[in-house]
Amino acid sequence: MKKLRLGIIGLGAQGGAYAGFITEGKVPNMEIGAICDIDPEKKKLAAEKYPDIPFYDDYIALIESGDVDAIVTCVPHYLHPEMGINALKRDVHALLEKPAGVYTKQVKELNDFAATKPELTFGIMFNQRANELYQKVKSVIDNGEIGGIRRTNWIITTWWRPQGYYDQSAWRATWEGEGGGVLVNQAPHQLDLLQWIAGMPKKVYSNVKYGYQRDIAVEDEVTALLDYGNGATGVFVTATHDIMGTDRFEILGDKGKIVVDDSKKVTIKRLKVPEAEMSAKMDMQDVMKIFMGTGAADIYDEEVLEFENVWGAQHTDVLKNFAANVLDGTPLLAPGSDGIQGVALANAIHLSSWLDKEVELPVDEDLYFAELNKKIEEEKTALVQK
Amino acid sequence: MKKLRLGIIGLGAQGGAYAGFITEGKVPNMEIGAICDIDPEKKKLAAEKYPDIPFYDDYIALIESGDVDAIVTCVPHYLHPEMGINALKRDVHALLEKPAGVYTKQVKELNDFAATKPELTFGIMFNQRANELYQKVKSVIDNGEIGGIRRTNWIITTWWRPQGYYDQSAWRATWEGEGGGVLVNQAPHQLDLLQWIAGMPKKVYSNVKYGYQRDIAVEDEVTALLDYGNGATGVFVTATHDIMGTDRFEILGDKGKIVVDDSKKVTIKRLKVPEAEMSAKMDMQDVMKIFMGTGAADIYDEEVLEFENVWGAQHTDVLKNFAANVLDGTPLLAPGSDGIQGVALANAIHLSSWLDKEVELPVDEDLYFAELNKKIEEEKTALVQK
Repeated sequence: MKKLRLGIIGLGAQGGAYAGFITEGKVPNMEIGAICDIDPEKKKLAAEKYPDIPFYDDYIALIESGDVDAIVTCVPHYLHPEMGINALKRDVHALLEKPAGVYTKQVKELNDFAATKPELTFGIMFNQRANELYQKVKSVIDNGEIGGIRRTNWIITTWWRPQGYYDQSAWRATWEGEGGGVLVNQAPHQLDLLQWIAGMPKKVYSNVKYGYQRDIAVEDEVTALLDYGNGATGVFVTATHDIMGTDRFEILGDKGKIVVDDSKKVTIKRLKVPEAEMSAKMDMQDVMKIFMGTGAADIYDEEVLEFENVWGAQHTDVLKNFAANVLDGTPLLAPGSDGIQGVALANAIHLSSWLDKEVELPVDEDLYFAELNKKIEEEKTALVQK
Repeated sequence: MKKLRLGIIGLGAQGGAYAGFITEGKVPNMEIGAICDIDPEKKKLAAEKYPDIPFYDDYIALIESGDVDAIVTCVPHYLHPEMGINALKRDVHALLEKPAGVYTKQVKELNDFAATKPELTFGIMFNQRANELYQKVKSVIDNGEIGGIRRTNWIITTWWRPQGYYDQSAWRATWEGEGGGVLVNQAPHQLDLLQWIAGMPKKVYSNVKYGYQRDIAVEDEVTALLDYGNGATGVFVTATHDIMGTDRFEILGDKGKIVVDDSKKVTIKRLKVPEAEMSAKMDMQDVMKIFMGTGAADIYDEEVLEFENVWGAQHTDVLKNFAANVLDGTPLLAPGSDGIQGVALANAIHLSSWLDKEVELPVDEDLYFAELNKKIEEEKTALVQK
């Protein structure tokens, strides 16, 4: 079997994990072509663990080496678009780590360039799209099984991080280093899943807390109110200070409801008759019968599904799918161009809180970029004053 | 035992239920002193069911009859404050049905007048305050068992009402007849419980849907984002179009979390060490131990309580408590003056959606009244054009 030669840029936690998966044979259609890192410690590590694999301390050299067919960008968020463009420009396939970038202006450049290279594979590590649970939820919605969406509500506060996490490196949880907090680092998967499953909202209003429970410049808590423009609404809550974290995703539709608990259990209620029809036909006596008696069970069927998650399995699925797309044209689960949606959502949530008003999507990308740069400047001034 | 003689104003569903409870002896310290209704059908009904009880078709006559020590106002919302004032003015105790009124300007007049009559009992039918489940939740918060509140989140969409419910009477779900929809009619209990347990927010932003899934002028869906002014936030969602209604109330505190499911089950997690202290002391290795291993159980104790609700039991508890306050000074569970808080919250949620911006509490009561009257005028014009 022909194997895709992957260049791993960045041998940190994520890059190291991918190198491990590939070495252990968990991605049968992939091999490590080369590794790149600017940190001398990582060079030593690579020499010990992967002595036969070429190592570069310049990612352009890796791309141009001829050792790799594709790259994966396990580096700080800001660098993802630039590295993606530089790979595609040299006819090397690109798999981006999430998020696709920090601001849409940057991600749009990447997408525009990628569109000029349709013969190359451009993917993004939205490993949660490989999660069978969310695939099931998406198929139930796409098949119209619960009808048009009326309301979404996701509380995802299972991203607990102690202060020590933020203090590990100077770039962490800074505007200059990461371009945001929980929205950019921890929650991009849920932002992507939310839009993948329920579509993009038209308007966003947010209440974002910057350095609320942690000594950081960026956000550690987010409450966002979404308006889908067709009457449907949504709520998205995330935080890094809830050690008893909640993960509860509810979608109400015209013909049913889905509740996902802890990304493990899905409860699907399918109404036998669409709600609008029940509303039109029933009087209060019928209502009393349903709610006081045993009638409730008769109005919908309930399906409860439990899924077992193995950490890493979804990452290897995305790696396999990416390689298969290059090798035999298997459709991509997470096309790279999709990455802009989650970034657009995160940008809108930030911008609403900065402007203290509801914003329309897509937000003005130049305005966002200017406001982000203001935060970076403020942060530098604050550091100098410390 | 001495009994309080209650004058029931309005013999509709609610007034009829109270008459039934008292007649059946469920409120041992109360008897029906008189009944009032302007509907001749209700007069006939009273003559059949309560032939020995004086009947009035003018509530002032009932108050002045000498037949009653107190009244309860089972009449349209707008009339509650006026009736309360007229009773207290004549030295008759007053128990108001919820909501205390439709707009705070009106409720404030009532409260101001009631304050001049401290010797009289002035209560409100917040029967959910008699619910042991919510009493438990309040005591856990008040005792500081989960520390300061960081976040509240209540989805209460169990208020399903079909179109036929709204079509029963011309006044239903109109600005002139009720002054609002789900916020004024169905959700006042939760608005009161929310502020009773977690305090009043300082600012509110809302997305309110008027006539979204029903042919009504007022709101059938509400999403409100609360800001408590000290960093804490909240979300309140309610609707009348979800036949598979959700009732889930979550409170995150510095030292624990409470989750109430279906107003029946309470899960209380109490951290052994406050979250801020865990954040200060733990590194990511400790975190991995907790989340990957079996350590999670060690960081908190979990208590799960189930409560059985019997419809009506809480109403009789409030009636008993009200009578006991008059007869022997037992402290009131729901003082009438508390009623303004839920009205203030509902007004703020409406006003934010009308002005399309976040509003501070208390909202400008004259502005709210003026905006409400605009809605009433628009509604009249729309009716004429039909």
